[in-house]
Amino acid sequence: MSNFEPVYIAGVGMTKFGLYPDRSIKKMVREAVELCLADASARPGDVEGLYFGNVGQGMIEGQSAAPGQIALRPLGFEQAPITNLENGCASSSSALWLAVMQVRAGMADIAMAVGAEKLSTDDVARRDSVFLGGFDVHDREGVFRELARYSEGIESPPVEGSRSAFMDIYGHWTRAHMRDFGSTQEQLATIASKNHWHSTMNPLCQFQRTFTVEEVLAARPLAYPLTVPMCSPYSDGAAATIVCSRRGLEKLGAKGSAVAIRALVQVSGTDRDYRDWERHITKIAADQAYEEAGIGPAEIDFAEVHDATAFGELLNSENLGLVPRGEGGVAAVRGETKLGGRIPINPSGGLESRGHPLGATGLAQVHEIVTQLRGRAGPRQIEAPKLGITENGGGLYGIEEATAVVGIFAAPGE
Amino acid sequence: MSNFEPVYIAGVGMTKFGLYPDRSIKKMVREAVELCLADASARPGDVEGLYFGNVGQGMIEGQSAAPGQIALRPLGFEQAPITNLENGCASSSSALWLAVMQVRAGMADIAMAVGAEKLSTDDVARRDSVFLGGFDVHDREGVFRELARYSEGIESPPVEGSRSAFMDIYGHWTRAHMRDFGSTQEQLATIASKNHWHSTMNPLCQFQRTFTVEEVLAARPLAYPLTVPMCSPYSDGAAATIVCSRRGLEKLGAKGSAVAIRALVQVSGTDRDYRDWERHITKIAADQAYEEAGIGPAEIDFAEVHDATAFGELLNSENLGLVPRGEGGVAAVRGETKLGGRIPINPSGGLESRGHPLGATGLAQVHEIVTQLRGRAGPRQIEAPKLGITENGGGLYGIEEATAVVGIFAAPGE
Repeated sequence: MSNFEPVYIAGVGMTKFGLYPDRSIKKMVREAVELCLADASARPGDVEGLYFGNVGQGMIEGQSAAPGQIALRPLGFEQAPITNLENGCASSSSALWLAVMQVRAGMADIAMAVGAEKLSTDDVARRDSVFLGGFDVHDREGVFRELARYSEGIESPPVEGSRSAFMDIYGHWTRAHMRDFGSTQEQLATIASKNHWHSTMNPLCQFQRTFTVEEVLAARPLAYPLTVPMCSPYSDGAAATIVCSRRGLEKLGAKGSAVAIRALVQVSGTDRDYRDWERHITKIAADQAYEEAGIGPAEIDFAEVHDATAFGELLNSENLGLVPRGEGGVAAVRGETKLGGRIPINPSGGLESRGHPLGATGLAQVHEIVTQLRGRAGPRQIEAPKLGITENGGGLYGIEEATAVVGIFAAPGE
Repeated sequence: MSNFEPVYIAGVGMTKFGLYPDRSIKKMVREAVELCLADASARPGDVEGLYFGNVGQGMIEGQSAAPGQIALRPLGFEQAPITNLENGCASSSSALWLAVMQVRAGMADIAMAVGAEKLSTDDVARRDSVFLGGFDVHDREGVFRELARYSEGIESPPVEGSRSAFMDIYGHWTRAHMRDFGSTQEQLATIASKNHWHSTMNPLCQFQRTFTVEEVLAARPLAYPLTVPMCSPYSDGAAATIVCSRRGLEKLGAKGSAVAIRALVQVSGTDRDYRDWERHITKIAADQAYEEAGIGPAEIDFAEVHDATAFGELLNSENLGLVPRGEGGVAAVRGETKLGGRIPINPSGGLESRGHPLGATGLAQVHEIVTQLRGRAGPRQIEAPKLGITENGGGLYGIEEATAVVGIFAAPGE
């Protein structure tokens, strides 16, 4: 059981993700934060600490130093500390981790995590630089040399056309798993097809259309074996979450719909051996989260995982213990991970369909978890879920993500 | 009295600040962290959470997503969460605030804050963009229009030559204070001359030479009334601090030289009226810090404050209550704030002499406070100090800093 005082989610808010060249980050933040405040019945003056997750605003639009203060202060927040942070694609999960830490420390009864990103820009070189900066800029060749060692044994036909550096990284990860466990391109296409089907039931998604497995396989390749519908797009968007102590919940009168955070863990990785998948950074985070929550993976009802590509979902369904090691693809083909299956994964549509505004993605996952646990997910509602899990990774260090965040959340009253 | 469990500083480390075009951030971080670990008798495996403060690495060298993981993981840190954060020139003070929060939350017994910056670059436009990004990039003209309103009434002769945008901002702040309180250029020159004298006793300073008041006044103007020796230079450097719970101290065997953190407060500002200096963001932070520590300014023995310019020291000596409002300059001229005076300020030499590698500055202040409180400051040692205070500000929102951090620290055994 957890050693910590309970911390609750009192409210969530997010924009529809998409490409909004004419909307500033500030406008997107305003929408997400106002939805979140309304959902929690909170006013800006109630919030005692704010954490702003973002990756590219400095590099794309030149906003350094205080992007969170500049986006949040005009909404009426005064005096409460605002901290800007970045952990790659896990930035807003790290923001949530810090907000929870402030409540656990007794330094706030009510705190807010915010994530935002604007990747639509005419300056494509600047956007590319954000992804190229996601791993060691002093040794880019060395990083890809290590990745090539990690994935050696599976041939990779060269592909042409634009993509982010991370699609090449995901290609290496995928091929290493194909070699070690026999995973296939068809399995990945099944995951992508499933997530795009889920997205047709989620109006907040950037894309809402179905793809058959055959359509996914026939689409433009990005990095073998990944094709366009298996990969998350460039996206803009913002999301926010309010967390509370029990006293904070009482102050807001939000007890009825509060979702308890049973565990929230952030970790870095180890210098693991290439073949030692059991020491993957995300497996370490998941093991710690289960220990903190005092439960095992069999008790989890559904998951939102970091499918920046379909392979991210395949691998992390294994790292979270939701399927046995090496069987992430097989389980997906058996239908276990789709709505109505044994353990639905990414009922939201996931990053592949919902979109991936880097700094907002982690809290978009939390938005879906909370929506499902409250029973408000409409046509994509999972039947009476009690426990949901999130997994979010960011950056690259060595042969895996630089940071991983895993959270376990319980339905109101659970 | 504080409501929080006590948190202690077990070790500090920093590089000499300067311009090191041939040293990477990674190398500077290694030096500061290894010094800090040795000072605390700690190994990397003891550290349960790390916070990496930096401002310009993304914009200057293109390192986004995970700069802290990339700099820190090779030093032997595994699994412990690493969080990258940015709060302008207060970034590493915010890193310390988060490290303390993790200990207070019971989520670590030993945590580390690290700050690093490399501003030496051939690409001057990129460096300039870091400073131009320190306030709202969507309304730069509006920001300077407000600052001009704030400072109206004191003529400002135009000056030529290169400087950062923040020297113009400091010019506006200074002129507003000259108008409201009669502060003078000579007072500012006295502060600069005093800090440069202090620097001759600190081998970690970027500059170690004296300036007479006349020399300071005769130097090249940057923004009226500020001249070059009144302003912090571009700098490279890194600094680190290890904080512990009482249990962490026992584990490290570091009790004898541990400095207690009596208060550490981070705040944002308010939409205060222009003339209402008493609601300055730093005054709010200082008032909260004194309340948290259960003491008043009269009990403070010395201070390290954010003299990005001499005016920063003048104003913040007032905001911290070390001198009466409006008398920061007069007190300096009376010699109250120099070594041997009533309340020495910036015995380290301050940002004006030590240098100002943005993301490292807050922890360099802590380095000086700890060195003095341990009685290890050599020729610049203050006589038996019991309590020291730090003040660090970052970014710009409205007419003042976007964030302010104030800390109060007690000598070993106090």
